[in-house]
Amino acid sequence: MFKLENQDGQARAGILSTNHGEVQTPIFMPVGTRGTIKSLTMDDMEELGAQIILGNTYHLYLRPGHELIEGQGGLHQFSTWKKPILTDSGGFQVFSLSQMNKVSEEGVLFQSHIDGSRHMLSPEKSMEIQRSLGSDIVMAFDECPALPATKETLRKSMELTLRWAKRCRDFSLGEGQKLFGIIQGGLFDDLRSECLERLEEMDFPGYALGGLSVGEKNEQMVEFCSRFVPKMNENKPRYLMGVGKPLDVLNGIKAGLDMFDCVLPSRNARNGQAFTKYGPINIKNERFKEDKDPLDPDCSCRVCSRYSRSYIRHLYNVGEYTAGQFLTYHNLWFYLQLSKDARSAILENQFDDYYRTFYKNYTSQRYN
Amino acid sequence: MFKLENQDGQARAGILSTNHGEVQTPIFMPVGTRGTIKSLTMDDMEELGAQIILGNTYHLYLRPGHELIEGQGGLHQFSTWKKPILTDSGGFQVFSLSQMNKVSEEGVLFQSHIDGSRHMLSPEKSMEIQRSLGSDIVMAFDECPALPATKETLRKSMELTLRWAKRCRDFSLGEGQKLFGIIQGGLFDDLRSECLERLEEMDFPGYALGGLSVGEKNEQMVEFCSRFVPKMNENKPRYLMGVGKPLDVLNGIKAGLDMFDCVLPSRNARNGQAFTKYGPINIKNERFKEDKDPLDPDCSCRVCSRYSRSYIRHLYNVGEYTAGQFLTYHNLWFYLQLSKDARSAILENQFDDYYRTFYKNYTSQRYN
Repeated sequence: MFKLENQDGQARAGILSTNHGEVQTPIFMPVGTRGTIKSLTMDDMEELGAQIILGNTYHLYLRPGHELIEGQGGLHQFSTWKKPILTDSGGFQVFSLSQMNKVSEEGVLFQSHIDGSRHMLSPEKSMEIQRSLGSDIVMAFDECPALPATKETLRKSMELTLRWAKRCRDFSLGEGQKLFGIIQGGLFDDLRSECLERLEEMDFPGYALGGLSVGEKNEQMVEFCSRFVPKMNENKPRYLMGVGKPLDVLNGIKAGLDMFDCVLPSRNARNGQAFTKYGPINIKNERFKEDKDPLDPDCSCRVCSRYSRSYIRHLYNVGEYTAGQFLTYHNLWFYLQLSKDARSAILENQFDDYYRTFYKNYTSQRYN
Repeated sequence: MFKLENQDGQARAGILSTNHGEVQTPIFMPVGTRGTIKSLTMDDMEELGAQIILGNTYHLYLRPGHELIEGQGGLHQFSTWKKPILTDSGGFQVFSLSQMNKVSEEGVLFQSHIDGSRHMLSPEKSMEIQRSLGSDIVMAFDECPALPATKETLRKSMELTLRWAKRCRDFSLGEGQKLFGIIQGGLFDDLRSECLERLEEMDFPGYALGGLSVGEKNEQMVEFCSRFVPKMNENKPRYLMGVGKPLDVLNGIKAGLDMFDCVLPSRNARNGQAFTKYGPINIKNERFKEDKDPLDPDCSCRVCSRYSRSYIRHLYNVGEYTAGQFLTYHNLWFYLQLSKDARSAILENQFDDYYRTFYKNYTSQRYN
């Protein structure tokens, strides 16, 4: 399912083939938690040139329910998104969102954060839901412990994750659905390597790094990825789950990772943050009150081609939701442009230059 | 500024010329209270084919302030809306929204609903603000008493409105800005006629009916318009302020009115209501849970061309703002289509047929 096109240093450019078409990597995948990217429409996502989006198993299972979505023809038809979809397993959410959760060999018993109702999410249940949703890439159900954690805790958790991975592997998914294995093991290279080896024995079509950006220092994550990623099978896609800031994505690409997702560009948008070539700005800042420039003068997105910081700041300050739309749209464009530009640089063996220039500009904070 | 193209019964089709181009009437004008149509962008408004939108003097005066907008080149440049804009006088809002208001000959002393700060809005101040905003059509500052009210109260109020109208008329607006006079007088034909005559002596380029849909019965308003509107100068545009439901607009057109505005299509959208050929529906309704049809199967708007009731209902129920965007977009399309179709019918002397068919379908409530 993955064709490696070029490698420049550790950075890679490739093509991912799915039931709903190809994805050019490296790629950032916008998060469509509950069947839409927050503040935007699927028309917007097409216009933005998004190639693949995420759906959340936990959220869609609770509302509107995976049976309803299956009855509507699956998540693609329900949401009208025609390109690839990746769904997570629900594992991360039952640990981070639910009112209560209790882990057993079978799975996780949890209480809904919406109405307190009790549910069991197991490897089989997660696969069943993701089969109903009809996503192109299905994630294995794993346990995701918060860092820092002792090596013993991490080993125990990793062993459980491996047993669960096997159960996911044995489940019969829909035609063409691809199941990714998730590598756990915290920041311990030996645990991670063992986890990777044992997952590879099960022969997944792709592998993800889970349990990062969950409490450790940013440098630790960057160093770990730089060391560990080259050990991963070079002919399979490598996905860094839930990460992160623009520089995290840039560093992930440098380490040789292919796929990224994060709520940050959309969530921070709703808090007034816009990403620019010269670092993030917050539109609430008084300095933008009469600023006729676009959010990012170096950006060519629909929002930056038309609206001023002054106007968007006003809309944000009076609570008009249109401001959230503008900021989300621009931020996703920024992330998609980052993956696109990185890919071009890799294909031209210019990734080091691209990296250095991006880094230098981004950390200059010219607008702050 | 107004060219009457055809009259069919009392219904009229015409062309309104402004600083920012022509408007084909009858026309519904979407309300952009604080510099944007709630939930939508100016790109959306262009796509919808809106010809003229409203801005609110009261809201824009308080935030971000008319001086700021003037410094940004006026409301057109600030909001990026290139077609005509009509601004209200702020009169209605100081009575309906402010914490406190005290009417004197000079104007209205009021307290901001945002921070309790005290401000005086007078005819001159309203004109000054609207001049700063640079709107194409400026509304005179009037007193708008709630109905029912005694004839004595209404006469007193009308006299004040006339003295204020004179002061607005004497104020020096920007080049090409057109000031509309507002006819008050409740449901008393003699008061309304007197008000109209005395305003016509001041020779405004257009006239509005104010103080309707503010407490009286719907039939009273319809009957009043049907009786009164033919008395208005046929060579000047006639604007029914703040009205109303689709059938109110239809009846207004039948009575010979040319311009309409109302927050209803956008406000009700945010409460889950969608207008359809066969009457309004509420997307929250259980019956739409698995409904694959669009909001209105007879509609060709961007939303109805793509998204199902089931999907929009899900988004609405989980609180995704995208639902509000979809419903607002569709509802404004519905209102704009209504004015467009009515105009075509009038130009073809088929308005009676159009009216009867629309009315029959709309009141059938087929989807409820």
